Amino acid sequence: MTHQPVMTAQEVSDYVLEIFNESSIYNWTVEAVTPGAVALSMLADERSIRPGGTVSGPTLFAFADVAAYILILAHIGKVALAVTTNLAINFLNKPLPGRLTATGRLIKLGKRLAVCEIHIFGPDSGDGTGQTLVAQATATYSIPPR
Amino acid sequence: MTHQPVMTAQEVSDYVLEIFNESSIYNWTVEAVTPGAVALSMLADERSIRPGGTVSGPTLFAFADVAAYILILAHIGKVALAVTTNLAINFLNKPLPGRLTATGRLIKLGKRLAVCEIHIFGPDSGDGTGQTLVAQATATYSIPPR
Amino acid sequence: MTHQPVMTAQEVSDYVLEIFNESSIYNWTVEAVTPGAVALSMLADERSIRPGGTVSGPTLFAFADVAAYILILAHIGKVALAVTTNLAINFLNKPLPGRLTATGRLIKLGKRLAVCEIHIFGPDSGDGTGQTLVAQATATYSIPPR
Amino acid sequence: MTHQPVMTAQEVSDYVLEIFNESSIYNWTVEAVTPGAVALSMLADERSIRPGGTVSGPTLFAFADVAAYILILAHIGKVALAVTTNLAINFLNKPLPGRLTATGRLIKLGKRLAVCEIHIFGPDSGDGTGQTLVAQATATYSIPPR
Repeated sequence: MTHQPVMTAQEVSDYVLEIFNESSIYNWTVEAVTPGAVALSMLADERSIRPGGTVSGPTLFAFADVAAYILILAHIGKVALAVTTNLAINFLNKPLPGRLTATGRLIKLGKRLAVCEIHIFGPDSGDGTGQTLVAQATATYSIPPR
Repeated sequence: MTHQPVMTAQEVSDYVLEIFNESSIYNWTVEAVTPGAVALSMLADERSIRPGGTVSGPTLFAFADVAAYILILAHIGKVALAVTTNLAINFLNKPLPGRLTATGRLIKLGKRLAVCEIHIFGPDSGDGTGQTLVAQATATYSIPPR
Repeated sequence: MTHQPVMTAQEVSDYVLEIFNESSIYNWTVEAVTPGAVALSMLADERSIRPGGTVSGPTLFAFADVAAYILILAHIGKVALAVTTNLAINFLNKPLPGRLTATGRLIKLGKRLAVCEIHIFGPDSGDGTGQTLVAQATATYSIPPR
Repeated sequence: MTHQPVMTAQEVSDYVLEIFNESSIYNWTVEAVTPGAVALSMLADERSIRPGGTVSGPTLFAFADVAAYILILAHIGKVALAVTTNLAINFLNKPLPGRLTATGRLIKLGKRLAVCEIHIFGPDSGDGTGQTLVAQATATYSIPPR
């Protein structure tokens, strides 16, 4: 049942930056591509802050969306026109600005649809409790016929 | 059951721009605040384009989120710390760049939670079919104790 | 953009009862099939009650799911193997036992995916406020190749 | 960050059967309650079958919902009036009738809201691939003031 990647972290990262204008405004990095999974990090700076001093919802959504896109492309190859059909995000805790990390996991990779779970963690608070889960998302992608 | 607004379109628009740094990067306008509902428009330009020449998912998410936020604040007043707890968005048709419109409707306004439906329409294609529904979202906001 | 039904209320109702064992345990009736839309009613009795004396979540889910299924079949014909891929339901108010009604609306009918919105209303409380919206659902169906 | 249960598997199971009429029609068993998590099993028999010979969506929804309810009660105690506010379920693979298992994990346990992830696995197919993930759900519960 485990899915094997067909692109490396570097390959998928280069490809997404090449095709996707908007991606470059987010400072994300693909940390790892493993079978059925992916890990990214990004730096959330002052442009992403909402009232109360925490990272905004649209920033977390965009990070979840790019993590899902990279996860799927890494496993199906250069299919730029794969499109999100549904993304449901739960905001669990308010993240402080700093380095966010996202882990993504394929829970279905069919011919027509791929579904994945994304977890986003906030910066380590330094108080010994480690990273806090700040958002969880489930995304469905439609894969065009090949 | 119909909820009466407590702020005008101008008041809620000014308030959100004042408290929310990131909002200003999107060119949205509050067109109308009516009982239980809101209408906004925004101009999606070349910064928002994804592969295939259509408006990106994060742009549509951010538009849905600000529409929901404005809808709720217009009905509960200046409660900046109301936070999205869940937003599920369905991408239905790919929007061409141009003027998008969003309509939002309160389906629950409780003491602790507010739930709303948002519909986003793409630019009129000029072929007589009118505007196309490009995305639908359901958002839940948690309202802090007052 | 409006979709024309290809089956009547009676035809789609007969078809679903024929193919779907479990449906018969819910007392639903198809009230109307109109272009892009459907209306059903059901009687929620004591078997469907949860703590607090209100109709249970699984009962509301099953009602939303059958409403979505009937809405889609009424517009694509006898395609029993159309399957729900995603259903997100928001429980808004606790419904008292009695006659529930559901309205469904197609918001996308593509070759591969159909998406619909369902609203479920509780019994009229008799206090002049009319029916209460008790649940809202968004469902996605995958349509098999024909 | 890990949450400690306040009820055993037996205690929470007895409590839910006592307060919740409808639960008894599903043959579920609480297999384990551990910090922040729960495991259940149920037998899906012929009453739960939909066209194509697989377990119906409402059956999987009801199983996910009871798993979430048991997970939350096991960690907050006998609070019967905790209510689901949102449940989004993805149907990933069609389960054959037989023994289903569900695992649930708390991803947030706040004063007012609890959020959990549920994974449902179908019967072992006996072909060496082990259990198949058939559905994934995310549920939000509102916790009444205590």
